[in-house]
Amino acid sequence: MLDDNPVTDLTQDQCWDFLGQHEFGRLAFHLAGEVHITPVNYVVDGQRLIFRTAEGNKLLGVTMNNDVAFEADEFTDTEATSVVLRGSAETLEGDEADAVDHLPLRPWVATTKLVVVAITVSEMSGRRFALHKPWAHMRSQ
Amino acid sequence: MLDDNPVTDLTQDQCWDFLGQHEFGRLAFHLAGEVHITPVNYVVDGQRLIFRTAEGNKLLGVTMNNDVAFEADEFTDTEATSVVLRGSAETLEGDEADAVDHLPLRPWVATTKLVVVAITVSEMSGRRFALHKPWAHMRSQ
Repeated sequence: MLDDNPVTDLTQDQCWDFLGQHEFGRLAFHLAGEVHITPVNYVVDGQRLIFRTAEGNKLLGVTMNNDVAFEADEFTDTEATSVVLRGSAETLEGDEADAVDHLPLRPWVATTKLVVVAITVSEMSGRRFALHKPWAHMRSQ
Repeated sequence: MLDDNPVTDLTQDQCWDFLGQHEFGRLAFHLAGEVHITPVNYVVDGQRLIFRTAEGNKLLGVTMNNDVAFEADEFTDTEATSVVLRGSAETLEGDEADAVDHLPLRPWVATTKLVVVAITVSEMSGRRFALHKPWAHMRSQ
């Protein structure tokens, strides 16, 4: 049942390229000793990820404990790519926050998101998977 | 800039329906005090999520601390849906693990994944977002 090589590791450059080509991922963070996860729109700025958020659990969580993880992925019928990273989150203020206005950070949803958060990456890995989904060919659509 | 109602909350039934219609999500878990995230193939069984994993960080993490979070999503050019949940993970053994062979749990990647993990959901929410991506219409493809 095993393929010779169904999984390929991405280089760090390939991971950054992948992140730069996408704008939607999932942030995992601590909140009061629990692990939480939420979808986010992000943009790559140098070696950081930037996103905006409103007051709420996401902001409270990263303020209380800045240890975070993040994942972005993409898949087709034959291949899936996933980049996961860990890092530390900090809220940006003043000039640093204003500078984000010049980045192509494009929230998909038109709700007010005032606080700018930056994730500094400490470790990152990416994998590309050759998919085996024989049932996909059996679908009615 | 704000829409009247860009975000719609899903009911619990709608969340379960969404999870049942998908098979790929992201698991967030604790590992040695850190938060980690990883993509997983899953299947819904009653009010639990089931996935398989090999020995490794994912299994070690949920064994040491069973507090986990999970997210699944889907998006088109005009709409995104995301279901997030929190719960507790446990490894299944014996008859319970064997019973999973009868579930439509279909790993996308043909690597060996021997251990069966079940997530019992403690809280869940789902949201559907009306997307505003004017730049999508400016893309060359």
